[in-house]
Amino acid sequence: MPELRRDPVSGRWVIFSPERRRRPSDYKYMSEQDPATSPFAYGNEHLTPPEVFAVRPDGSAPDGPGWALRVVPNRYPALRIEGDVKCDPHGVYDRLGGVGAHEVVIETPEPRLALEDQPLDGVHRVLEAYKSRMLDLTRDHRFHYILIFKNHGPLAGATLMHAHSQIVALPVVPMVVFQQLEMARRYAEFRERGLFEDLLRQEERDRDRIVHENSGFIVFCPYASRVPFEMMILPKRAEPHYTSADTGELLQLADALKTALVRLRHSLDGPSYNLVLRSAPIRCSARDRLTHLHEDYRWHIEIMPRLGHLAGFEMGTGFFINSVLPEEAARHMRSVHTGE
Amino acid sequence: MPELRRDPVSGRWVIFSPERRRRPSDYKYMSEQDPATSPFAYGNEHLTPPEVFAVRPDGSAPDGPGWALRVVPNRYPALRIEGDVKCDPHGVYDRLGGVGAHEVVIETPEPRLALEDQPLDGVHRVLEAYKSRMLDLTRDHRFHYILIFKNHGPLAGATLMHAHSQIVALPVVPMVVFQQLEMARRYAEFRERGLFEDLLRQEERDRDRIVHENSGFIVFCPYASRVPFEMMILPKRAEPHYTSADTGELLQLADALKTALVRLRHSLDGPSYNLVLRSAPIRCSARDRLTHLHEDYRWHIEIMPRLGHLAGFEMGTGFFINSVLPEEAARHMRSVHTGE
Repeated sequence: MPELRRDPVSGRWVIFSPERRRRPSDYKYMSEQDPATSPFAYGNEHLTPPEVFAVRPDGSAPDGPGWALRVVPNRYPALRIEGDVKCDPHGVYDRLGGVGAHEVVIETPEPRLALEDQPLDGVHRVLEAYKSRMLDLTRDHRFHYILIFKNHGPLAGATLMHAHSQIVALPVVPMVVFQQLEMARRYAEFRERGLFEDLLRQEERDRDRIVHENSGFIVFCPYASRVPFEMMILPKRAEPHYTSADTGELLQLADALKTALVRLRHSLDGPSYNLVLRSAPIRCSARDRLTHLHEDYRWHIEIMPRLGHLAGFEMGTGFFINSVLPEEAARHMRSVHTGE
Repeated sequence: MPELRRDPVSGRWVIFSPERRRRPSDYKYMSEQDPATSPFAYGNEHLTPPEVFAVRPDGSAPDGPGWALRVVPNRYPALRIEGDVKCDPHGVYDRLGGVGAHEVVIETPEPRLALEDQPLDGVHRVLEAYKSRMLDLTRDHRFHYILIFKNHGPLAGATLMHAHSQIVALPVVPMVVFQQLEMARRYAEFRERGLFEDLLRQEERDRDRIVHENSGFIVFCPYASRVPFEMMILPKRAEPHYTSADTGELLQLADALKTALVRLRHSLDGPSYNLVLRSAPIRCSARDRLTHLHEDYRWHIEIMPRLGHLAGFEMGTGFFINSVLPEEAARHMRSVHTGE
């Protein structure tokens, strides 16, 4: 039975999920998974739990072939979907029942087609699926935060090569999100302006950290990038919630994301990366100390390349040393030949 | 020229150090470094910058053989020691000159002797060296925080096998430290008691997360461990600063640390790990928003095993899934046969 525990020293929530240990490929990256046994392969729909969302251009029935994209519950979910969020403190410690959703977005039926190699409408389809699942999960009053992320490649913690993303709905708001909300609030309190608005303005003035820009988004290497070639995709329209992006914006986002990932791949010989969609909490409580913190926030995407174990100790220390300035990384990414 | 940049979205400081790119073994773990060229080898003292501290039982001269432990400036320092801490904001962004110290503690002349395999007085010698360097660096008014950490093994970001630790003196206080101080302060405000005092009391009552205990310290797996077999070494005496530990306490700490590392190694077949010494900031400024935050804090050691890339994506998302409960990890570590 999974549970959520809060570290009283750092404020961080950790999911304890003994079930996850049953995962067969915990320590092995499956780049060459046998299509006969791959749960993501076309024709193997019976190997996953029943789909919760799918794009089926031919109007085919659920859980069979005919799909362009599927969203299914994780076979080894970190949290369970049934039950109440029971608060169960243990003395000085806080504990919650591990209630939540854990879904997998199978981005394409093609086992070797990376997200950035899909045509624009394929990337757009993935982004619409994120939005659709977020809207649906938001209706569940037990959930306070929805985390969408994508681990690409073995160094990023992926265990399957077949292109996929993950969605986790949580009954708490992660510390890192709370911190970002708090920073935006403090800035707004003092400057009476939005942090993200100023950040966007500064990037558009400086231009030397910008990798790509279109009518809806800028892609840039953050001023204080934690690792070489880190990128942020920031919408030009101020909105705390990803779900408020409309079709036109998601088409622009598809262009921004595809360009960012193609340029990253060509700059670094196909690195592993973690992609995180940061959106405001979907629901607040006194526990989350978040009342009125949303309005100064702006959803965005962070892309963090994983370049070997070099950055390893940063996880333990929370302290980053980066040897490549973002201006230099962005210049390289702008100029790299992508064959397009 | 290194510089420190602050991310306005997360509050995190990042060190930019183009110099670090010159490191020869950036992407390669040197388990079998040739003693002829190893800068840590006995007789190769000329290959390091002049020592800033050493234990020389025979009274030998600096920078030659005769030592039991040496502390030297890092050959590829992330920060430079000369200069003023110049605040140099760039619009919405904050930047500081990269002034600081970056030192290496060579824990033993023996190229293959792990810290936990040293006799107790060898481990104690390392802990006294940490204290001595902290006291010395504290005298430099430019520094606000001293970070001491040890990366062991390739998955932890170490590039040399020869046992060593690192010391970084910073002109700012890292976000993660600020967060811990803030959590301790909030707890004290509400309960009118210390967080660490209550945490210690709870662990001593529950006992099921304790790995080892002596008169000065408990070693336990934290209630909300981020990764399997994570450990905390917490002093029983309330002190925010490591430097206040006396010889008797450091002897007890040597016992606690040696036991923790030996039990970890035997539990997991010699895993890589990151060790971090968390001590209160040595100096405050308005910038650090830390006035009066120290008193509720207690210094401690965190040991975080690195088990492959599994935990990889947590770095990107700030969100942890752990499949092993700390009670289970501690039981295993208590019972493992260490051959001692």
